[in-house]
Amino acid sequence: MKLQLSTWPEVEAYLERSQGIVIPIGSTEQHGPTGLIGTDAICPETIAGGMSEAGILVAPTISYGMAQHHLGFPGSVSLRPTTLLAVIGDVVRSLACQGFRKFYFLNGHGGNIATVQAAFSELWAEDSLAARASAVDLRLANWFMGPRVVELSRELYADAEGQHATPSEISLTWHAYPEQVRRLPLAPERAPTGRIQDARSFRRQFPDGRCGSEPARAELEHGHRLYEAALTDALDDYRRFLEMSVG
Amino acid sequence: MKLQLSTWPEVEAYLERSQGIVIPIGSTEQHGPTGLIGTDAICPETIAGGMSEAGILVAPTISYGMAQHHLGFPGSVSLRPTTLLAVIGDVVRSLACQGFRKFYFLNGHGGNIATVQAAFSELWAEDSLAARASAVDLRLANWFMGPRVVELSRELYADAEGQHATPSEISLTWHAYPEQVRRLPLAPERAPTGRIQDARSFRRQFPDGRCGSEPARAELEHGHRLYEAALTDALDDYRRFLEMSVG
Amino acid sequence: MKLQLSTWPEVEAYLERSQGIVIPIGSTEQHGPTGLIGTDAICPETIAGGMSEAGILVAPTISYGMAQHHLGFPGSVSLRPTTLLAVIGDVVRSLACQGFRKFYFLNGHGGNIATVQAAFSELWAEDSLAARASAVDLRLANWFMGPRVVELSRELYADAEGQHATPSEISLTWHAYPEQVRRLPLAPERAPTGRIQDARSFRRQFPDGRCGSEPARAELEHGHRLYEAALTDALDDYRRFLEMSVG
Amino acid sequence: MKLQLSTWPEVEAYLERSQGIVIPIGSTEQHGPTGLIGTDAICPETIAGGMSEAGILVAPTISYGMAQHHLGFPGSVSLRPTTLLAVIGDVVRSLACQGFRKFYFLNGHGGNIATVQAAFSELWAEDSLAARASAVDLRLANWFMGPRVVELSRELYADAEGQHATPSEISLTWHAYPEQVRRLPLAPERAPTGRIQDARSFRRQFPDGRCGSEPARAELEHGHRLYEAALTDALDDYRRFLEMSVG
Amino acid sequence: MKLQLSTWPEVEAYLERSQGIVIPIGSTEQHGPTGLIGTDAICPETIAGGMSEAGILVAPTISYGMAQHHLGFPGSVSLRPTTLLAVIGDVVRSLACQGFRKFYFLNGHGGNIATVQAAFSELWAEDSLAARASAVDLRLANWFMGPRVVELSRELYADAEGQHATPSEISLTWHAYPEQVRRLPLAPERAPTGRIQDARSFRRQFPDGRCGSEPARAELEHGHRLYEAALTDALDDYRRFLEMSVG
Amino acid sequence: MKLQLSTWPEVEAYLERSQGIVIPIGSTEQHGPTGLIGTDAICPETIAGGMSEAGILVAPTISYGMAQHHLGFPGSVSLRPTTLLAVIGDVVRSLACQGFRKFYFLNGHGGNIATVQAAFSELWAEDSLAARASAVDLRLANWFMGPRVVELSRELYADAEGQHATPSEISLTWHAYPEQVRRLPLAPERAPTGRIQDARSFRRQFPDGRCGSEPARAELEHGHRLYEAALTDALDDYRRFLEMSVG
Ligand code: NI
Ligand code: NI
Ligand code: NI
Ligand code: NI
Ligand code: NI
Ligand code: NI
Repeated sequence: MKLQLSTWPEVEAYLERSQGIVIPIGSTEQHGPTGLIGTDAICPETIAGGMSEAGILVAPTISYGMAQHHLGFPGSVSLRPTTLLAVIGDVVRSLACQGFRKFYFLNGHGGNIATVQAAFSELWAEDSLAARASAVDLRLANWFMGPRVVELSRELYADAEGQHATPSEISLTWHAYPEQVRRLPLAPERAPTGRIQDARSFRRQFPDGRCGSEPARAELEHGHRLYEAALTDALDDYRRFLEMSVG
Repeated sequence: MKLQLSTWPEVEAYLERSQGIVIPIGSTEQHGPTGLIGTDAICPETIAGGMSEAGILVAPTISYGMAQHHLGFPGSVSLRPTTLLAVIGDVVRSLACQGFRKFYFLNGHGGNIATVQAAFSELWAEDSLAARASAVDLRLANWFMGPRVVELSRELYADAEGQHATPSEISLTWHAYPEQVRRLPLAPERAPTGRIQDARSFRRQFPDGRCGSEPARAELEHGHRLYEAALTDALDDYRRFLEMSVG
Repeated sequence: MKLQLSTWPEVEAYLERSQGIVIPIGSTEQHGPTGLIGTDAICPETIAGGMSEAGILVAPTISYGMAQHHLGFPGSVSLRPTTLLAVIGDVVRSLACQGFRKFYFLNGHGGNIATVQAAFSELWAEDSLAARASAVDLRLANWFMGPRVVELSRELYADAEGQHATPSEISLTWHAYPEQVRRLPLAPERAPTGRIQDARSFRRQFPDGRCGSEPARAELEHGHRLYEAALTDALDDYRRFLEMSVG
Repeated sequence: MKLQLSTWPEVEAYLERSQGIVIPIGSTEQHGPTGLIGTDAICPETIAGGMSEAGILVAPTISYGMAQHHLGFPGSVSLRPTTLLAVIGDVVRSLACQGFRKFYFLNGHGGNIATVQAAFSELWAEDSLAARASAVDLRLANWFMGPRVVELSRELYADAEGQHATPSEISLTWHAYPEQVRRLPLAPERAPTGRIQDARSFRRQFPDGRCGSEPARAELEHGHRLYEAALTDALDDYRRFLEMSVG
Repeated sequence: MKLQLSTWPEVEAYLERSQGIVIPIGSTEQHGPTGLIGTDAICPETIAGGMSEAGILVAPTISYGMAQHHLGFPGSVSLRPTTLLAVIGDVVRSLACQGFRKFYFLNGHGGNIATVQAAFSELWAEDSLAARASAVDLRLANWFMGPRVVELSRELYADAEGQHATPSEISLTWHAYPEQVRRLPLAPERAPTGRIQDARSFRRQFPDGRCGSEPARAELEHGHRLYEAALTDALDDYRRFLEMSVG
Repeated sequence: MKLQLSTWPEVEAYLERSQGIVIPIGSTEQHGPTGLIGTDAICPETIAGGMSEAGILVAPTISYGMAQHHLGFPGSVSLRPTTLLAVIGDVVRSLACQGFRKFYFLNGHGGNIATVQAAFSELWAEDSLAARASAVDLRLANWFMGPRVVELSRELYADAEGQHATPSEISLTWHAYPEQVRRLPLAPERAPTGRIQDARSFRRQFPDGRCGSEPARAELEHGHRLYEAALTDALDDYRRFLEMSVG
């Protein structure tokens, strides 16, 4: 069940049986010479698509994330952390005032993690400072850290997975958009590793945008398997989350 | 050319020939008993899809807008104006630092207009207060106000178009998602009109969410025609915009 | 009844019979070679002066507005949209906590419109996100768009009215300050038209500050007639506003 | 020379001979049973009127100040400190980008002092954190603390001056608006003294709004004398300020 | 009783007998060629140490204050006023939600005064705008302005006390850290006086960082006496504060 | 070398040989029935004390952190994430404008991690959005995650270490304040584990404040060993950090 493709009476009926919602969150940022700029949004959106077929309500993807270090590559967009924090706060407050209680952020971008967690704390701090119980439970799940995904990724790529523009995420975007397969010679085969600071230093350290990865090892067939693994991870994790008490 | 489905070297090449980009902006809000919650995002995203086929770069849709008055209906989400203003600012600043100069926000939601215009002023004010020329040109285009769309909508629905959950936008979403056609008896046939204040008063004045409209008059075939009209309007308007000088 | 010239017990008594208040809002910005920098504040303040004589409570004028595009001309002042939004919010919250319910912003500056509307949404969003009814009703009325004013302006100036530093507003300031009549040769007679972006581009497009107008056609006698038209428009509109239900 | 009653070419010419400007800042707040709500704005505006006759440029009055403790009395309005701080910042930045260098805030309200000083520090901090010299010099002058005013006030009222709704300020408003003289029996003759906290405690401690004062001792003739004293104080102080080096 | 060296059950027990807490607030800024950068934090922290021995709960020192004008000297740190205002707000809200009612900020830095007072107003404004009584009482006490300290300082140094890097504060830091006595030839003996603007102008006016003072007159033995005076002043003042009613 | 106990000429000289600085950051929050409220500040401050003896410049501790979940226990204080983010930003900007380039935040509190990382991104985003190289390098080091500390903690406590109010941190505070050893019977011996949400849910899940730990196993002698391990970890890590290129 996709929120965008539902009507309000359908959501009203859904709320009778569940107070949970999935919110995919990604980023719009370079993913190396062959990876799609939308990779980090496409991955959680695709997995959440599978969740929605299982009857779980899925909100529109937050496509812009915290990606300041990628701004040196054309097409990358970043919200400042304080902006993203405000976005997450408003999305949660909006749905909470209608009775949603369980917010499951399915994330596709490592660079979002700190800010999303800070956003959760900002929301809870409002309640904590007012000495009242919070009405919302918030969970950040990174699809690329689910147990089945991690295992499969290790099996497929081992160290070649790397940190950014990984063969796993590239493969998964191909599963979602098979017509978007791009293959280019990449040199060096294995991208360098380094540290993340500002955009200027990032581009100097990682000249083609990849970090420690060999995206050339991506395969469409891997994408299918990764999708299944990620969906199972997410459904499992979401169900456990629903069973936990709120606030 | 969709930003999400491009790579950074492709965007780098695009920037050589154009500094313009289209950013669809919508809302996630109730659209009456039969209209999709994603209507205001789906419409500009669909039209922008046509623009992307004409070689224009299209960024991911900003799916969450300013919709505080709809919050009384489950599934509606609103950013506060100050949050949306920050989002627009960061998206523009990000792309501007890479050389984009012409930002065309294709909007699907009347409730966004004031805030988007305020966001433009906030961006320009930074430059004006620093006594420097702005590097960016910003335009807000509402697809539902294009000349061909307005003419066709009048022809098809006249007064039955109304203000919210209109047959035009419903028809256009059906063009995008033909499997999402919903038909329900709506009483009264013509929704009431009123004033927009907070969410509580909105739901009291507009009990099923429609404002002044007869969405039951929507037709899939109308959607096809509206799409053509809207795309032609948008392409025309965008091209004129590109020809205007920046800053 | 002017708030500045009242005492608190007088306001307390007023609140017994009315919960409405008029707040003039203008701008401090260039109005061409002959127009006063205070034009946009003087006009609504003058009209509101007439309303106050009819027993309506009138608050002090918000003299600084959103005028970033005028900053290239000495003497122009602009609040950033986010600042003006905060000002409007605090003024409303202050008076609302004492029982005022109907806030009528009488505006003299087109550049304020988007921000004032965003400010209203920000206020209502607080209530909507908290799932409570708002206690306040907010209206933005632009004196220059009232029906009698528009009709008279067309009759007097037709196209020569233009968009900024218009003969209507100049005439009205002369009604308020007859000793401030300035006449200078203006070339071209009719100011150019263009687009509003940042201050630098504004001054380049509109070298003497006027936009599309012929302020040389202003007359003191026109000012008297415009004042009468604007006051009648405002009284009418305010009374209708008072009759509408709050929240 | 009043900014509101000037044109931009006149301001441009003024800037050739002076980079100084006077900005009256007041408050909209109760002043006891007989004092005008606009007292704190009227006083500096009136004195600044005298300065303008001496050829000094005077900007429109900032009529809304920091008056949270008065909100328990109808008609009082307060900006939050952070809002007022933003207003002052934008006014200064606007005029600074045109070449103004000397900003003289003529203040009528003790409650503004801390926030205005914090606003100055916020402005200077921008420059200091950027390791560049500030282009602006900022001064807060409280008319009621000028040497001639203090001496005259002591002579006229001694301890009966009190802290709020003082006979000095009441007298000065009568000088400005002789038709606004109000006389009512006040009991006790001398208002109580106390501490300033929130609005609720303020109204409990100061039931009629006065603090430590005997405004019944105000006289129109005192107002004339206080005006002369305050104007001389302000002109003296402003001229000394102009002579000091900027930044 | 120091908060940092207490457990929560001990604080719970303390709250049974007192709702007051002391919060030292200082700054990290240059204090001339011989004064410690931590002077303004060390002084109130030391005095508060004495208060804690009298059974009063003392919170950790806020070591970073508003010191933008000192940023030209290495090692100086400044929070912007809006940041410090937020810090004070959160510290108060945190403890207020647990039952603390009396917040005594013991301050060591003149540059903090305006911002701390603005922060108090911001906190109270929240309650005043919500038309509810505030639960907190807030007091800013500057150790260097206590009656015994002022008297002793005058006796010891008269005019040589100056405004910044004073012999009083230097002596008091020696009382706290006797091993930190530094003596250097200072020329001129008496530092210049001037005005505070941005950091650049500060360093130009006050080349070695001192303002109007002769810190060479500091003595360890003076520090002991000043400590006794300051502690007695603070204990007296705190006890009076506790006796005043809240809100 | 401690910043608080240095003079500005000494810092100026230090900057000639190093552009690095250590900033301890902690929290003021409950640590179970026997742990000190200052534990998370005391630990990094103590370790940084050792670093300062090695000639490294150490700034004053940021004693208040992000601890919203602890607010249900008296004496706990939390900054909201957005406040802490602003504090970190200002501290870095202040020192950067004087030439510091390497900022080493030595952290004692897990709850700070996300916000500190978001603060780093906010700082870098300023540079990245302006398309300029950042002048600062920023590192967050958690003392409790250093390799020697982790190894020793496992050896000493294995699973009894837990997540909050751990025997490691308790032991280390005893090393710092041997007179503060507190021993109380704790039941259950091993604290429960759970999830972190708002303060209300935290106190319900963790009734005495401990999470998964057995602080009763803390020993003063362990504290000495942990201090040595932590100091060696920090010195090693800091030196590696200094060798990395900035920006
Ligand atoms: Ni990725
Ligand atoms: Ni719509
Ligand atoms: Ni105008
Ligand atoms: Ni007053
Ligand atoms: Ni000092
Ligand atoms: Ni801890």
